[in-house]
Amino acid sequence: MVVIKRSLKIDSNSNFQIIDITRDIVAILNDFNKDDETQMNNGIVNIFTKHSTSAISVNENEKGLLSDFEKVLKDVVKEKDNYKHDFIDNNAASHIRAFLLGSSETIPIVDGRLDIGTWQSIFFIELDGPRRSRTIDLTFIGE
Amino acid sequence: MVVIKRSLKIDSNSNFQIIDITRDIVAILNDFNKDDETQMNNGIVNIFTKHSTSAISVNENEKGLLSDFEKVLKDVVKEKDNYKHDFIDNNAASHIRAFLLGSSETIPIVDGRLDIGTWQSIFFIELDGPRRSRTIDLTFIGE
Amino acid sequence: MVVIKRSLKIDSNSNFQIIDITRDIVAILNDFNKDDETQMNNGIVNIFTKHSTSAISVNENEKGLLSDFEKVLKDVVKEKDNYKHDFIDNNAASHIRAFLLGSSETIPIVDGRLDIGTWQSIFFIELDGPRRSRTIDLTFIGE
Repeated sequence: MVVIKRSLKIDSNSNFQIIDITRDIVAILNDFNKDDETQMNNGIVNIFTKHSTSAISVNENEKGLLSDFEKVLKDVVKEKDNYKHDFIDNNAASHIRAFLLGSSETIPIVDGRLDIGTWQSIFFIELDGPRRSRTIDLTFIGE
Repeated sequence: MVVIKRSLKIDSNSNFQIIDITRDIVAILNDFNKDDETQMNNGIVNIFTKHSTSAISVNENEKGLLSDFEKVLKDVVKEKDNYKHDFIDNNAASHIRAFLLGSSETIPIVDGRLDIGTWQSIFFIELDGPRRSRTIDLTFIGE
Repeated sequence: MVVIKRSLKIDSNSNFQIIDITRDIVAILNDFNKDDETQMNNGIVNIFTKHSTSAISVNENEKGLLSDFEKVLKDVVKEKDNYKHDFIDNNAASHIRAFLLGSSETIPIVDGRLDIGTWQSIFFIELDGPRRSRTIDLTFIGE
């Protein structure tokens, strides 16, 4: 059993943006499997965003659907609604949307591959962009 | 420390269905504990659905409450609302509900038992059924 | 690799209360690092609430924002709405809010420290208080 840490640095370029990070995670896992010491056949990867105005989610990467996610999130949590945090930092809606979505997902690794379904992608969800250098922690645990 | 993989195959029989999978997970854990090599006293189990129109959740298995969950999810995310994904696959609401609920939960194992509360059950939530052979990945890590 | 279990016991003193448990988790981690046998440089901690009318979340601890979270949760899930569970136990709204938020978060540990962002705190969210002795399971896995 080993634990291996990596992080992703993501730049967002709009206020609301769903960024597919599946390939980045797959690339790291492929690199591990080139080396006996880091080989990981079975385990998990925990994906955690270090920012409280962003979220991690797993769903289908279809362009229309991504805009549907945005529409519903903005319907459920209005942009402005006399939020108290808006007097401090003017981004309450971003925090509240993150609060509903969650900061982490943990995903299985089987036979050296990310064991997600055919229609699943892993998303970093920027809720208060544009921002430079958002950090996502990846923790791989397995053997 | 060991990592042990299992998966559950679930058939749903209606469009929206909350299926209690606690017993299936407990049965697997009990099997582990019959064998020294797989014995798991302390650790975690990660429960991950491989389908982006379903979710994993932990709550109380009370019949009325399960129908309340359905009612609120359908109030918060309307079945039809000019979703763009409906032009592609006609199941946007299912994806959006899954997006709000999340794809995984990770749960402690203590003294060889699933350490959930008296009123907690683990649910697979079918949001786009009926479907055959939905796959849920279980990853047990512990010692 | 080791797995180490701890639990927190929390008393809440109002019906809805967001309680910051970051310091409690950091204190446990600091104790581990005083002893070679429990030293944990890299790994994860899984934080799981054993109560289905409560939730775990990670966000910013700013007083105004915490009241915004409460306001939006109560707007999205009405306190009373002919919920069927209210005929059984009269706390349907508490369960439904927990259902939307989730029961666990898993968070990285890097260089012996909880690797959360500058503006992140870990919250236990009481949705059906006041209650005595709510239990939160902490499972540390790492090396």
